[in-house]
Amino acid sequence: MTENVKKGETVVLIDSSYQKFFINTDSKTDKYQGVGVIDPGFLIGLELGKKIEIGNKEFWILRPSVMDRLEGLKRIAQIILPRDSAHIILNCSIEPGHSVLEAGIGSGSLTIALVNAVAPDGKVISYDKRTDFIDHALKNLKMMGYEKYVTTKNRDVTKEITEKNLDAIIIDIPDPWNAVSHAWNSLKIGGYLCTYSPLISQVEKTVKEIQKHRFIEVKTYENIQREMIVSEHGTRPSFNMLGHTGYLTFARKIIK
Amino acid sequence: MTENVKKGETVVLIDSSYQKFFINTDSKTDKYQGVGVIDPGFLIGLELGKKIEIGNKEFWILRPSVMDRLEGLKRIAQIILPRDSAHIILNCSIEPGHSVLEAGIGSGSLTIALVNAVAPDGKVISYDKRTDFIDHALKNLKMMGYEKYVTTKNRDVTKEITEKNLDAIIIDIPDPWNAVSHAWNSLKIGGYLCTYSPLISQVEKTVKEIQKHRFIEVKTYENIQREMIVSEHGTRPSFNMLGHTGYLTFARKIIK
Amino acid sequence: MTENVKKGETVVLIDSSYQKFFINTDSKTDKYQGVGVIDPGFLIGLELGKKIEIGNKEFWILRPSVMDRLEGLKRIAQIILPRDSAHIILNCSIEPGHSVLEAGIGSGSLTIALVNAVAPDGKVISYDKRTDFIDHALKNLKMMGYEKYVTTKNRDVTKEITEKNLDAIIIDIPDPWNAVSHAWNSLKIGGYLCTYSPLISQVEKTVKEIQKHRFIEVKTYENIQREMIVSEHGTRPSFNMLGHTGYLTFARKIIK
Amino acid sequence: MTENVKKGETVVLIDSSYQKFFINTDSKTDKYQGVGVIDPGFLIGLELGKKIEIGNKEFWILRPSVMDRLEGLKRIAQIILPRDSAHIILNCSIEPGHSVLEAGIGSGSLTIALVNAVAPDGKVISYDKRTDFIDHALKNLKMMGYEKYVTTKNRDVTKEITEKNLDAIIIDIPDPWNAVSHAWNSLKIGGYLCTYSPLISQVEKTVKEIQKHRFIEVKTYENIQREMIVSEHGTRPSFNMLGHTGYLTFARKIIK
Repeated sequence: MTENVKKGETVVLIDSSYQKFFINTDSKTDKYQGVGVIDPGFLIGLELGKKIEIGNKEFWILRPSVMDRLEGLKRIAQIILPRDSAHIILNCSIEPGHSVLEAGIGSGSLTIALVNAVAPDGKVISYDKRTDFIDHALKNLKMMGYEKYVTTKNRDVTKEITEKNLDAIIIDIPDPWNAVSHAWNSLKIGGYLCTYSPLISQVEKTVKEIQKHRFIEVKTYENIQREMIVSEHGTRPSFNMLGHTGYLTFARKIIK
Repeated sequence: MTENVKKGETVVLIDSSYQKFFINTDSKTDKYQGVGVIDPGFLIGLELGKKIEIGNKEFWILRPSVMDRLEGLKRIAQIILPRDSAHIILNCSIEPGHSVLEAGIGSGSLTIALVNAVAPDGKVISYDKRTDFIDHALKNLKMMGYEKYVTTKNRDVTKEITEKNLDAIIIDIPDPWNAVSHAWNSLKIGGYLCTYSPLISQVEKTVKEIQKHRFIEVKTYENIQREMIVSEHGTRPSFNMLGHTGYLTFARKIIK
Repeated sequence: MTENVKKGETVVLIDSSYQKFFINTDSKTDKYQGVGVIDPGFLIGLELGKKIEIGNKEFWILRPSVMDRLEGLKRIAQIILPRDSAHIILNCSIEPGHSVLEAGIGSGSLTIALVNAVAPDGKVISYDKRTDFIDHALKNLKMMGYEKYVTTKNRDVTKEITEKNLDAIIIDIPDPWNAVSHAWNSLKIGGYLCTYSPLISQVEKTVKEIQKHRFIEVKTYENIQREMIVSEHGTRPSFNMLGHTGYLTFARKIIK
Repeated sequence: MTENVKKGETVVLIDSSYQKFFINTDSKTDKYQGVGVIDPGFLIGLELGKKIEIGNKEFWILRPSVMDRLEGLKRIAQIILPRDSAHIILNCSIEPGHSVLEAGIGSGSLTIALVNAVAPDGKVISYDKRTDFIDHALKNLKMMGYEKYVTTKNRDVTKEITEKNLDAIIIDIPDPWNAVSHAWNSLKIGGYLCTYSPLISQVEKTVKEIQKHRFIEVKTYENIQREMIVSEHGTRPSFNMLGHTGYLTFARKIIK
């Protein structure tokens, strides 16, 4: 069963080193970074999953998956990597239909993973103190067609959270402990708080603050991902490894 | 905003060591493991999130989250742990509405995580060669109210996969390489195959077979989770650590 | 070339699960833990490296190696494991002939590794506040024939270090930062300080104190050891893993 | 107690990023890499441990420690890192006075660590098939004053080992399994074999061969070292991490 690129849809072009580039077929002729000067209209009707040649490079054309979206996004701030987003989503028990809040939005990486988990009936509220981050993240979200699921607010999460009855709140700011009290107030009963922090001292202050509130199942994890290189010569862990991303602290609201 | 247990709903009772027990309020008076002899009807109307006393134990009552479902499930076979399920779901780009196939079903742990990710519009098809595993997993799924999203088939995935156009296929059997060819045929274009194997030799055979088919983005990962113990004395990694679960191999179908 | 057990020597008996028991052939008939009631004299003349039967158990007889000494020692306190002792010795550049100080002595595990590295011309000075630890460690050292290389002192290392010109000082106490100043004074120029601490907060206080003194090459490491299980079925990391031992901080004395 | 550089000795110059350069005070005026054009004679009489200025760079002068030797060595081949050398030495129970054999010599990194552990009464025998590696390693060893403890042989360890009664044999070649039989013959009773291999398949073939011989305590380890970054902002694992070095397999000779 073959499928073809439709007019108006956004496709992902994947090159031989698996770099990913998003192109909307309705866009005008232009220079597309990593691809070259093209009229995107020529993609319409091409068979999905096939390799095409553009200039002297080859690309597979596919409908974008969430991993494409996460890997193809343009970064201005440090992002929460997919490996950590995966743990956040499951450990916060995020489901389709949920309402979740994140602060800050950064480049929108976690935002994309959250939208993917709650759409089409759920929603993501994203706070950030910096409008440049919000603008940049929105640009990424629009390219993915995800902006309709996200409400951005130029707001400091340590000052207030006005939403109520949230299923989960994820805090990635330098002083997450200052948002704990607001988070408790805004979570539904049984809802999850998650904080992401690179430093142990941040974890310690946050856990101390969490323990002053009615939370259970308070846990802190570090997720280490090792890639295994499998070749004809044999198998070994990759020499190239990211030594650390951040610590994830989880907690769950109860009444007493 | 307080909420109360409704007649007919299934709640989770969480004890002080965070063990989890599922009780349907319509069930009859009986001995419930870990809880004692109770008439579940007495739970109706109690406030969610509050601690109650049953016998000489205390429990919080909550609506079950997916983590409750994963941690409260009864095991007969080795399960895929939530840490790996989280990676499988995101790296396979599984979204609400997707159709995914897993083999085997085991105790239904990955099944629960998959249902949570694709419900209410998606579906999970679960193959297993052993009817006792299917029966046990279905019991777990029924307790969670998840059975309606799952189609079980007493079938050997290395013999055939009859479904077509699947978004993702996850293989957790001793010889995943024997299912690779069927998986390619049954995946949609751009769909993901994932295999889970504890042994390097399994990974090697599987990757070799994957490379004979039209797959891209073939990667093998190991996820290591470390818990951090945060106490008033200070912070350190937990002494108690699971040294290994399994290697996750991912691949994505293209046409050529 | 065969060798035989000599009168007066201490041998190690290794059972099939590689538990290790030290026996001096001059000892009197007695019940030896893990071995049974034996007259050690019967071992004299037996061929080294051969399996013998005692009661219904089998043992290999060997001359003790340093790993035998480390694994066969009797513990009363938490020990520094061989994996960490190995790093301490090399990162402190300990050589045969060196004079090194450790505090506290604990069960004598690091002591044995240090003696092995500096003997026969070097020496180990061991401080401990607790005489019961010193007595216990000395019993272990005597069993190994190592007591002649060790000077024990019932002394608090945070109060004073009277030795001078030491090649290395290794501190394993709850408040290593209180010994840093004494350590600087007692090290030779270019000599190494090492502290071993399970908690991050201990590391932080110690590094802060070290930075007040003239030390260079200040580094903190964590060593994680994974055992690989190699069987006919294939290879995988061991499920059973110690998640944490302690952080090792190293620093090297300069003048200015 | 101050100490001064003596005529004829080799000192290490350590720059502010802890790069290390060896200079013999008897050497002639020349351009020394990383240091500049100097007449090494001017170092004589300077106080050890003090910072000196050469050109526009600053250096500490010290007597070389074994870590200086390991970090200052010039590489042409992939080296066994100090973290692994440390484990090899302790797990092989290497002591002052021992006779140990390594193959191949590579750049001489493990050689230096072994010399440090067995000198002055022990000896290291180093086999290598390539004379260019031997020549390069000897140059490193001479710079350290270590060449007198090392016997190099331009020989293939998979063909024969002529030495007998060795305390330990360490094999770092692509096909260590081909040296196992020779190793058993050349080890003393109770002596240790260690093989170092990056690939799982190498470990598997080696362990299979080891199991055909009379060895006990066969174990395979992987050592993962994480550096902790301790700063005024707080503490975290380093982002920069070497993901893999090699697997270490140990085994110990018995007679039966």
